[in-house]
Amino acid sequence: MNSPATPSPIVLVPGNTLITATPEAGRHLAVKMARLIMKATQPDDAVRAKLRPAYADDPALLIAAGQTVAMEFATIAAANNYWK
Amino acid sequence: MNSPATPSPIVLVPGNTLITATPEAGRHLAVKMARLIMKATQPDDAVRAKLRPAYADDPALLIAAGQTVAMEFATIAAANNYWK
Amino acid sequence: MNSPATPSPIVLVPGNTLITATPEAGRHLAVKMARLIMKATQPDDAVRAKLRPAYADDPALLIAAGQTVAMEFATIAAANNYWK
Amino acid sequence: MNSPATPSPIVLVPGNTLITATPEAGRHLAVKMARLIMKATQPDDAVRAKLRPAYADDPALLIAAGQTVAMEFATIAAANNYWK
Amino acid sequence: MNSPATPSPIVLVPGNTLITATPEAGRHLAVKMARLIMKATQPDDAVRAKLRPAYADDPALLIAAGQTVAMEFATIAAANNYWK
Amino acid sequence: MNSPATPSPIVLVPGNTLITATPEAGRHLAVKMARLIMKATQPDDAVRAKLRPAYADDPALLIAAGQTVAMEFATIAAANNYWK
Repeated sequence: MNSPATPSPIVLVPGNTLITATPEAGRHLAVKMARLIMKATQPDDAVRAKLRPAYADDPALLIAAGQTVAMEFATIAAANNYWK
Repeated sequence: MNSPATPSPIVLVPGNTLITATPEAGRHLAVKMARLIMKATQPDDAVRAKLRPAYADDPALLIAAGQTVAMEFATIAAANNYWK
Repeated sequence: MNSPATPSPIVLVPGNTLITATPEAGRHLAVKMARLIMKATQPDDAVRAKLRPAYADDPALLIAAGQTVAMEFATIAAANNYWK
Repeated sequence: MNSPATPSPIVLVPGNTLITATPEAGRHLAVKMARLIMKATQPDDAVRAKLRPAYADDPALLIAAGQTVAMEFATIAAANNYWK
Repeated sequence: MNSPATPSPIVLVPGNTLITATPEAGRHLAVKMARLIMKATQPDDAVRAKLRPAYADDPALLIAAGQTVAMEFATIAAANNYWK
Repeated sequence: MNSPATPSPIVLVPGNTLITATPEAGRHLAVKMARLIMKATQPDDAVRAKLRPAYADDPALLIAAGQTVAMEFATIAAANNYWK
């Protein structure tokens, strides 16, 4: 089991590219990248499973989680020249 | 019923495009995208319905929700070259 | 009376444009757009009137409200090519 | 006396321009613009004077106030093409 | 032992470049840069070790830490022209 | 002694330029600019010295301080065309 202090072998950018076919796919990548950083910070699956209900039921955390996705998506959208 | 851990089949970018006819339509898309991420994180309609009054009546959460929209709108506005 | 769950008929971008004559007018548009999102999230005038003193008297909320304006203004300023 | 609900006659962008001679002047403009938004939201000088010690003595609020300046400065720096 | 007030000799940008071969490497650089700033602010290894479980087990802090990485990554991705 | 309400004579941008020789130097400038804004807001050295342990020992404040540096660095990196 990894301790939080150990560099994580977790893949942080699935597919190793920011380029996606569509905005919808880009949005899904943003969600995944946001989750993978949390997984790298807290690699223990059992702890993360215990924390998940906390932020899915707390409006402040739900909003904060949404802001993370918005930030990741801004970068992905720019990478894809906004799919224009 | 989806559990929060299941990948959501929810559409995250309505119309699968960031391009809108007007700034007003872009702003509405920003609101929708912000809400759909919260729906993907907490897909249980009953739980979200219970959380909604919490952030609509709490000034800190109202401001935070507004910041999420501002972030999404920044990306949408850039995608539309600011409707110039 | 609108309930928070009803899609709002509120205009979110006054004049349906991000273009303004001056930086001062752009800053006022940023303030208005930030307020209109809060109005769309909480359309009940009486509830908003009750919440207003809370954030005008709380330094954390005053700062957060200022950050929302800064975010909206960044987009408006870019749309106007910084009024150069 | 203005009530918080009255549209403020406060100038929000001193000089009505984002262009400054130097980065130092741009940073001062960022500080002023951040303060003027707080003044527009809470125009009562006596209330603001009472709130000021709260954020100058609270590390969380000091950091948040610094983030507002960083946001405003990002826009001003872009407007000045980074004074290059 | 460094006190927090002493300018830190810690390297803040490993390799002294924002350029990376891949998005995955860029994401790892974002994580490192975010951690190194925390190390520069709190150089005492023992204190940081004590703080680490706090944010790895607290969903609000996990999300906030993820937002820091998103911010650093936005800059790194732009520096690499999004690895296009 | 300056009171927090007095305009500060503190230099906010050391060297009055955002241009640095390297990313490492740019990161140090970001740290300095973030600290100088806090100094301008709370110019009393004794108060700041008392506040410093608070944020160096509090994971939420450490993360928030890191986010300020990330914001300032984004601007400095753009000013230097990412040192490419």
